Amino acid sequence: MSQTIEQIAKALEARAEGDLTIEVTGASEPAAAGPDQIALAMSEKYAEGLQAGKARAALVWEGADWRAYGLEAAVFVTRPRLAMAGLSKAFDPGPSIASGVHPSCVIDPTAVIGADAAIGPFTIVGPDVRIGPGARIVGQVTIGEGARIGAEALIHAGVRIGAQVVIGDRFVCQPGAVIGSDGFSFVTPDPSGVEEIRQTLEQREEITEQKWTRIHSLGTVEIGDDVEIGANTCIDRGTVRATAIGSGSKLDNLVHIGHNVQVGEDCLLCGQVGVAGSTRIGHRVVLAGQCGVSDNITVGDDVIAAGGTNIYTNVPKGRTIWGSPAVKMETQLEINKSLRRLPRLFAQMAELRETVTKLTQKGGTE
Amino acid sequence: MSQTIEQIAKALEARAEGDLTIEVTGASEPAAAGPDQIALAMSEKYAEGLQAGKARAALVWEGADWRAYGLEAAVFVTRPRLAMAGLSKAFDPGPSIASGVHPSCVIDPTAVIGADAAIGPFTIVGPDVRIGPGARIVGQVTIGEGARIGAEALIHAGVRIGAQVVIGDRFVCQPGAVIGSDGFSFVTPDPSGVEEIRQTLEQREEITEQKWTRIHSLGTVEIGDDVEIGANTCIDRGTVRATAIGSGSKLDNLVHIGHNVQVGEDCLLCGQVGVAGSTRIGHRVVLAGQCGVSDNITVGDDVIAAGGTNIYTNVPKGRTIWGSPAVKMETQLEINKSLRRLPRLFAQMAELRETVTKLTQKGGTE
Amino acid sequence: MSQTIEQIAKALEARAEGDLTIEVTGASEPAAAGPDQIALAMSEKYAEGLQAGKARAALVWEGADWRAYGLEAAVFVTRPRLAMAGLSKAFDPGPSIASGVHPSCVIDPTAVIGADAAIGPFTIVGPDVRIGPGARIVGQVTIGEGARIGAEALIHAGVRIGAQVVIGDRFVCQPGAVIGSDGFSFVTPDPSGVEEIRQTLEQREEITEQKWTRIHSLGTVEIGDDVEIGANTCIDRGTVRATAIGSGSKLDNLVHIGHNVQVGEDCLLCGQVGVAGSTRIGHRVVLAGQCGVSDNITVGDDVIAAGGTNIYTNVPKGRTIWGSPAVKMETQLEINKSLRRLPRLFAQMAELRETVTKLTQKGGTE
Repeated sequence: MSQTIEQIAKALEARAEGDLTIEVTGASEPAAAGPDQIALAMSEKYAEGLQAGKARAALVWEGADWRAYGLEAAVFVTRPRLAMAGLSKAFDPGPSIASGVHPSCVIDPTAVIGADAAIGPFTIVGPDVRIGPGARIVGQVTIGEGARIGAEALIHAGVRIGAQVVIGDRFVCQPGAVIGSDGFSFVTPDPSGVEEIRQTLEQREEITEQKWTRIHSLGTVEIGDDVEIGANTCIDRGTVRATAIGSGSKLDNLVHIGHNVQVGEDCLLCGQVGVAGSTRIGHRVVLAGQCGVSDNITVGDDVIAAGGTNIYTNVPKGRTIWGSPAVKMETQLEINKSLRRLPRLFAQMAELRETVTKLTQKGGTE
Repeated sequence: MSQTIEQIAKALEARAEGDLTIEVTGASEPAAAGPDQIALAMSEKYAEGLQAGKARAALVWEGADWRAYGLEAAVFVTRPRLAMAGLSKAFDPGPSIASGVHPSCVIDPTAVIGADAAIGPFTIVGPDVRIGPGARIVGQVTIGEGARIGAEALIHAGVRIGAQVVIGDRFVCQPGAVIGSDGFSFVTPDPSGVEEIRQTLEQREEITEQKWTRIHSLGTVEIGDDVEIGANTCIDRGTVRATAIGSGSKLDNLVHIGHNVQVGEDCLLCGQVGVAGSTRIGHRVVLAGQCGVSDNITVGDDVIAAGGTNIYTNVPKGRTIWGSPAVKMETQLEINKSLRRLPRLFAQMAELRETVTKLTQKGGTE
Repeated sequence: MSQTIEQIAKALEARAEGDLTIEVTGASEPAAAGPDQIALAMSEKYAEGLQAGKARAALVWEGADWRAYGLEAAVFVTRPRLAMAGLSKAFDPGPSIASGVHPSCVIDPTAVIGADAAIGPFTIVGPDVRIGPGARIVGQVTIGEGARIGAEALIHAGVRIGAQVVIGDRFVCQPGAVIGSDGFSFVTPDPSGVEEIRQTLEQREEITEQKWTRIHSLGTVEIGDDVEIGANTCIDRGTVRATAIGSGSKLDNLVHIGHNVQVGEDCLLCGQVGVAGSTRIGHRVVLAGQCGVSDNITVGDDVIAAGGTNIYTNVPKGRTIWGSPAVKMETQLEINKSLRRLPRLFAQMAELRETVTKLTQKGGTE
């Protein structure tokens, strides 16, 4: 899959100079680049690498004297990561799946699969499933009865999509993800210890046996357009209404989304984030890796949480938070500083108490 | 799958009034309910929703004036979540699996599968496996040689059950769970840095190369009756004795149970909880989301841990804990309050030191 | 698979006494051992168990009076866990997979599979894959186009290996692991809130809409020799260069390794550890369960982190750390002690302020 420098510049909406007919078949870090690769030298720190490498063309920073590095062509980039998005898309061949449905698949006759589908081996598609045009399904995938998936889905190996799940267009799902597992919702005949604790925040008076009875998940999962789900991530179905992931949201690997959770649009939920049941996450929320969110709370629009933050209560919109329990980032920075200074504070207190005792004895305040 | 209001009331052991012959095919939130659904209006806050919706019948709170909301029948509920358990069970069709064993499955001739089994495509069942009557296995499942599974199992897609694993009756397992992976147990020829640190809790004197050699897992996993395992959860096999999950315990998604761990009966381990090797968890323990438990410790019966709690040492029975490291919940609440007030404490200290210095200079204590 | 005591002693390079011709078929804890099992009594605390059990032979501690426990043979062990490694390897039969490639597999004709392979049902092997000799692949595995796997691999059920992934010899991979999922790398046309926060560590002035565009992963994953990967662990491919796991490193279950991450040699990454994108982990690093490591930082060689540690910044080599944010272990111990004493400190401050106020009034410092 080769591209000319002209094609690349056009795809990136960027200015290019030099021999725009040069063809490249991939991209590389400057020092490692061969003559058939475009070097990624989007800031001045890569200048040395460009000298060392063998690339004939490069993405370079604005103002770079590209000819001095022995290049024959250059594409000028102002926002490097955005340029990477365009460039990497151009060179990503995607998984190789033979077109059509592999003969080993078990497809229910009532399922409707759109045009131009490529479905790999051992895939199971249940009754009344609808899959839009242009689907690419790598293989070993299970899609439960009545599920609906929009156009141009890319579903990697071993993904499990439960019954009645509804998914929008341009869905991307990494291997092993589970969408539509049953919610973790149990009840005891009498109030359980957990219910008591939530009332009292204290030790319990008395402890009794408790057997857990399942509350079945009658709801489903509804996923908007342009959503991406990471490897081995799990999204539980709702109890009555659907668990929902808004359009444009991206979930990383090993994320856990509990039953009834509502995630807004254009959110980023990073690796190993967990959101407990019935919580509502606003739009454009970013939760860094390993954040945890308690059940039945609301995280406002545009909240950003640093890695490992534990959110136990509602968070107002627009706030940047950190810590456990989560506080404003500036508060946590203050707390961290205080913690390091604590031993000194204890020492000062001891010293001061001694001084004051002496003063008191001398002055006879009592 | 329609039910009369009379049938529903009977299933919930609840009192009903009005036209008990009305048939419904599902349940819904009050405002969204159609005429063929029973509205879930189990507290007064749903009164408005009942007015707006089209349901003919509802689950209502004790004392509700149901006719005023245009209903034709009502079922009175005292413990709403318990009622939901009964109602949701009645309306859950479960996954659709054709009865019998799908011809694509690879079943070892020495395996014995009980009556009325429904086993979906591409399932692998090893030698000497025993599966009880009434099994429902969705598909793409792997069951290793010698494994034993009790009656009425419901095993979703892509579950991996290792060799010799023993599981009781009424087992429910969500997609992608792994039961019986090898334990994470390694040893170095000479004592490793970790062993040294455990002795000294300090920096190490000297650092040497260390190559890890596997301690193989000869033990298995033993799971009691009425256990449920969440999506993509992993349970490692024991080194010599079995890793064990007691009857009635429920594990959520993405939970990690290390080798040799003993989990008691009727526990709830929520999403992304991790329990390290050889630790013992008592009965009726509740670990909220993302709790971590160190290896080789004991968590007593009836312990409840808030989300994100890190448990490094033994916990006495009946205790409610929070934080990292875990302390009594009331202690953590006190610590949290103190942390927020710390900057003020530092300011007070500075001010006080100044005052006392002045006093001292004046009084001449030295 | 029976072994004589002589064979076992030889395998463990240990001294044995008594009847070395006794054959055993497995190992057991002393009290539960039968006559055909070797009892594991590697310290004096097992003396009572030996009395109770039925074993004829045992692994015993140096100096044990083994005849007094009714044993007929004994193997003397100085480093018990190392002995367990040897013993458990001798008795582990491994998964039973029929030799050869199961006829249900879909193997691309251009793939080359080494001698003596055993590949279970429903495995998919893509174009140009190379698998070394002695491979054992349990079943339901997917191996993408162009992947390279060394000699003597043991790959459990449901593992997903992506395109172009390169893996060394003696690879062990637990069920459900995903190697080579796409990186979690997105960019907005204008600087996003996250970028702004990283600059300011403060609240944002203004909040704007942001749509995320994927940066595709053109890189792959490179894994050295003797690496083991846990169940449902996920390793993302790199953006341009490869994500890398060094030889001898072991990853536990449910670990998340982001794109471009470099893990050194002989590391242990325990259950549910997460390492964010482009971070570099040195050699012989041990991260206990649920540790989190931020993106784009460096963790030096021989660092050891206690469970649940959150690493936000570079860590110098050789350091033992704990806490969130991570500090030296001794500092965290000091902080923990201080936190418990904080309420007392607040009380002392209140008391002292009162005393000083009285002194001041009396002495008239103002």
